[in-house]
Amino acid sequence: MIRAGILGGSGYTGFRLTTYLARHPHIEIAFVTSRQEKGKRFSELYGALGGLCDTVFTDPADVENENIDILFTCAPDQVSMHVVPGWLERGVRVIDLAGDYRMNSGEAYTAWYGKPHISPSYIEKSVYGLTELNRERIRTAKLISNPGCYPTSVILGLAPLISKDLIEASDVYVNSISGISGAGRDLKNFKLFYETDSNVMPYGFGRKHKHVGEMEQELTKLAGVPVMVTFAPHVGPYKTGILSTIPVIVREGVRKHDLDEAYEEAYNSEFFVRYHASGLPESKFVADTNFCDIGCMIVEGTRRAIIVSTICNLGKGASGQAVQNMNVMCGFDEKEGLL
Amino acid sequence: MIRAGILGGSGYTGFRLTTYLARHPHIEIAFVTSRQEKGKRFSELYGALGGLCDTVFTDPADVENENIDILFTCAPDQVSMHVVPGWLERGVRVIDLAGDYRMNSGEAYTAWYGKPHISPSYIEKSVYGLTELNRERIRTAKLISNPGCYPTSVILGLAPLISKDLIEASDVYVNSISGISGAGRDLKNFKLFYETDSNVMPYGFGRKHKHVGEMEQELTKLAGVPVMVTFAPHVGPYKTGILSTIPVIVREGVRKHDLDEAYEEAYNSEFFVRYHASGLPESKFVADTNFCDIGCMIVEGTRRAIIVSTICNLGKGASGQAVQNMNVMCGFDEKEGLL
Amino acid sequence: MIRAGILGGSGYTGFRLTTYLARHPHIEIAFVTSRQEKGKRFSELYGALGGLCDTVFTDPADVENENIDILFTCAPDQVSMHVVPGWLERGVRVIDLAGDYRMNSGEAYTAWYGKPHISPSYIEKSVYGLTELNRERIRTAKLISNPGCYPTSVILGLAPLISKDLIEASDVYVNSISGISGAGRDLKNFKLFYETDSNVMPYGFGRKHKHVGEMEQELTKLAGVPVMVTFAPHVGPYKTGILSTIPVIVREGVRKHDLDEAYEEAYNSEFFVRYHASGLPESKFVADTNFCDIGCMIVEGTRRAIIVSTICNLGKGASGQAVQNMNVMCGFDEKEGLL
Amino acid sequence: MIRAGILGGSGYTGFRLTTYLARHPHIEIAFVTSRQEKGKRFSELYGALGGLCDTVFTDPADVENENIDILFTCAPDQVSMHVVPGWLERGVRVIDLAGDYRMNSGEAYTAWYGKPHISPSYIEKSVYGLTELNRERIRTAKLISNPGCYPTSVILGLAPLISKDLIEASDVYVNSISGISGAGRDLKNFKLFYETDSNVMPYGFGRKHKHVGEMEQELTKLAGVPVMVTFAPHVGPYKTGILSTIPVIVREGVRKHDLDEAYEEAYNSEFFVRYHASGLPESKFVADTNFCDIGCMIVEGTRRAIIVSTICNLGKGASGQAVQNMNVMCGFDEKEGLL
Repeated sequence: MIRAGILGGSGYTGFRLTTYLARHPHIEIAFVTSRQEKGKRFSELYGALGGLCDTVFTDPADVENENIDILFTCAPDQVSMHVVPGWLERGVRVIDLAGDYRMNSGEAYTAWYGKPHISPSYIEKSVYGLTELNRERIRTAKLISNPGCYPTSVILGLAPLISKDLIEASDVYVNSISGISGAGRDLKNFKLFYETDSNVMPYGFGRKHKHVGEMEQELTKLAGVPVMVTFAPHVGPYKTGILSTIPVIVREGVRKHDLDEAYEEAYNSEFFVRYHASGLPESKFVADTNFCDIGCMIVEGTRRAIIVSTICNLGKGASGQAVQNMNVMCGFDEKEGLL
Repeated sequence: MIRAGILGGSGYTGFRLTTYLARHPHIEIAFVTSRQEKGKRFSELYGALGGLCDTVFTDPADVENENIDILFTCAPDQVSMHVVPGWLERGVRVIDLAGDYRMNSGEAYTAWYGKPHISPSYIEKSVYGLTELNRERIRTAKLISNPGCYPTSVILGLAPLISKDLIEASDVYVNSISGISGAGRDLKNFKLFYETDSNVMPYGFGRKHKHVGEMEQELTKLAGVPVMVTFAPHVGPYKTGILSTIPVIVREGVRKHDLDEAYEEAYNSEFFVRYHASGLPESKFVADTNFCDIGCMIVEGTRRAIIVSTICNLGKGASGQAVQNMNVMCGFDEKEGLL
Repeated sequence: MIRAGILGGSGYTGFRLTTYLARHPHIEIAFVTSRQEKGKRFSELYGALGGLCDTVFTDPADVENENIDILFTCAPDQVSMHVVPGWLERGVRVIDLAGDYRMNSGEAYTAWYGKPHISPSYIEKSVYGLTELNRERIRTAKLISNPGCYPTSVILGLAPLISKDLIEASDVYVNSISGISGAGRDLKNFKLFYETDSNVMPYGFGRKHKHVGEMEQELTKLAGVPVMVTFAPHVGPYKTGILSTIPVIVREGVRKHDLDEAYEEAYNSEFFVRYHASGLPESKFVADTNFCDIGCMIVEGTRRAIIVSTICNLGKGASGQAVQNMNVMCGFDEKEGLL
Repeated sequence: MIRAGILGGSGYTGFRLTTYLARHPHIEIAFVTSRQEKGKRFSELYGALGGLCDTVFTDPADVENENIDILFTCAPDQVSMHVVPGWLERGVRVIDLAGDYRMNSGEAYTAWYGKPHISPSYIEKSVYGLTELNRERIRTAKLISNPGCYPTSVILGLAPLISKDLIEASDVYVNSISGISGAGRDLKNFKLFYETDSNVMPYGFGRKHKHVGEMEQELTKLAGVPVMVTFAPHVGPYKTGILSTIPVIVREGVRKHDLDEAYEEAYNSEFFVRYHASGLPESKFVADTNFCDIGCMIVEGTRRAIIVSTICNLGKGASGQAVQNMNVMCGFDEKEGLL
């Protein structure tokens, strides 16, 4: 049995992560911390976990000497960078679900997150945990920076086409819609049922969303040239799921068949990425799962194509991918705990 | 033009009330107060009101000398009882949407609300604003205690049958489900979309809900004998609407036709109460309106009947009925502003 | 490996059943039939099953000689009674998710379902598959009549109190609300999103719902005296979940503690029934699971109690319980495939 | 009083149109036809209209000699082109909510709708009913082709910028999401609550949607050069509302202030178009209304801008705009019936 700890686990990401780990045959949950909810049982916050996980939230201060094999950090930005180095030094492998180690330098972090980085020397030790792209490095990594939800959908949707140079990649528009759980569990007026129900809300357009930096960084690596992302995220009236719609220009002469081939080559052996050669995926195909479903079409008689990539923001976009990464790191079946 | 003021108008009740008043041909909105939102325009909170109502929320302290004809109070419990007497003394008619004047004595108030009453002498001057039952007294009232949402649905559903002694009234079970707006706009975890969506939540069962006192008081008046109400309210995954389902025992020999007759006699001349002689009403028939729709059935071969009464909790259950009462008080067409 | 066949599997019950079986370690799906969808892959109807179940729907006529160990029938009423005997004669064990074998005699069937029974001699061979109540008989049964969704919630909610004679059981009112999936997948106007969203719809009140017969039959067995059920089902604006609210009269002197004790004694060793000694369960606790969550309260100073029992109509109310029963019949861990 | 008739009024467009007309002070509803629902009262289909409109659906054959002033046609494509000429010849003014007269020639119609046009000579007599752009011609028109829902949102969102040549207009990508009512009321599996709830579904991408032809035609007129539209519509889990998100390239040197000025100049005197100089509108601002709310932003340091334009698909996108046009044609206050 692997002993796992979770820091900052009372939010939706922590709930989903705990749900996965509670049914994972090789994992024992050592602790889940929450400053705000300490002393409560998990199932008091999330009735669905009754009988499945009766872990009591503990204060983060009380777990510092816990003997664990792997740590998941679900705390808000700027917490991981303080505590992760200590755990790493004690030999614990870490999967960071926050954004602290996603940017490739302290400067890039500051540019996108607006704050200084406390432990930039650990950045280069981290591996960007997009499992399908970085599996080999993940296998032996000590520190995983688990990708953001929007970037996961966008990078998986574009990677095969960019890698094979089938599309113009320097200037990409991404239109995304996410369920409200992407905004977290802290109390804000716009998250109330009365405000969210039946509503579509644009927010964080342009370069205001920190996920833009992450997307540009990773897509630039794939493209070999600078990629600019113009991003238009929306919140829709549902709990979970991201659907990203991405119009692109295909290279001269590229046809639907070429796109199909690229996707199939990239993902045919991947369990958690399903390419739809005909038809376009819907967000319900993947809600509450670790799948990423992708489809595309070319506008007849033009070089315009549209890609659709959809994931569950709490699954493949956060906790599902974290568990997938853990499975890779520990040599488990990659699907363990995730079906 | 009648000048109307609204105290505590930034919540859902205030939003709905302002929506009605903004399109009312004989009303000018003099002010809407909100301690929390003062300085903001109404349409900043509720984008739907853009161009329709650009009132800026003011501090309650700043309106005390405003010259108005009628005051609506939408503030939380225990506010009205402090400020209403002053306005009444200045000759302003008041419609109180809170519960401060609904119970018929200071003692009854304390028993159900758990706090002392500050201005009990004004209780007896108030008229319980269930328009269809008390229209004549409302016409000349200075102070209206506007009914609670659940009581409105229940009392309108039972009144004709109790008045004609068609059912056993001493011991009534009421099962209700309400949209989340009934819980108000202040930030609480259970009101988040993530918590409310797809969920049915029982709460406040038995005698915990203060509306029980109000129902028992008013039904007892109608029955002439003490009525005990066993109450089971629920919150459902939608914004507005209450549907109350009430099983009763009909008197020996009473048939469906007798119930129909009682309802039709009571409500045939009422615009805002629609009796369904065949079929049962659904909550969408009345959502966002001032209607109360009622239907009933008798279980074949038994004396058991079930009554369904549905209203919009923000309409007939709060702001709609308040405007209906205002229309009665001012001699306007009762439908004005409400269609 | 056990080979399982599913008759009439293209609806929501078949979808959920297939989802459970597809991840069950000891089950191989031999076939799923659907007259209407034959030739399509399961994942064409339900994208969520892509990569998890690529079974192609076959015509029921094509599977008659299939070699299977267990058959699940999800077809509409009156289909099972024709085909089940043949499968039983061929030595196949059957779990019937329709209502054909739920009533204890051909006459009772006709009284509630309005049609003659074709194979009444098989009724007495069937075991009513409420797992927690009939586990021992289920273990060796050849034919399981899997309970209806509403009856499952109601019987589990009342059984411990009736068995211990803690409540008056002869005359029970049941108020239930169900997600729309309970109405099935065939096209009807009232199931459209536009009609169902934000709506609560009462339907089938009184003795119109055939589940009333099933509840009365089973509760009467437990009570030892005839039980009459007055039933008020509703459809709410969500996909899955039933919450039943049941007001009862407790016997003289019975207190909350006695109810707790009865429930705990009955269910403490049951994994899939969770009794909430404090607080009341919400439908989201059990949605999409095989759990039944139960809570109750006594109205202070009275003999009136209210019981809340909630299940997922497609889980414990149909396919989950069917798999649980299969696990019992096959000697598997009762949770297998269900977590 | 103006006498109005409605052809094909049993769908959602007819429901909304009737709701507006029923409260319009100058309109008398002469008839509403429906082949499918003839003989039923309107309120049997839509309980919300009880007491407000008790019109009985009639067979279209029975109204041919009705004496009316104005006809609304809500029938499916290809019906209007057969019947509209006859009504026009009898001196009745017609507002066609279908697409039959939207394309500017029989050839263009055939290209986009895939069928021949029966009465192409009437096309040139029709006026495209985008009120804010064509008000003067609408005033005296005999035949209005009421715009499609998506085109209304897109054209209102782009017109001021294209007219002033502030953006590159030749190649436009439009990302839209619509509530399910846009798909109509006829029974299709994907419209079921179970299928639509919590789901985002891309459909009709590229040039498959006939609204693309309409958008290109009208935008080309405004731009003076051919405009190509790449269109990505989606259906979201809610009843009403379209939100279109449109990334554009602004001309060299154009700044946010220039965009603001263009919008304000175009719409400051328009009641039903609300421009948000700061912030972006959400679909709930306009749901169930006749408003179009518009906002935009420029991505800092780039020439990329994103426009958001939102309407209610049944309001400004169909029946609301039809009534607005009728008000213009009849010389009524443009808001009459619409608030």
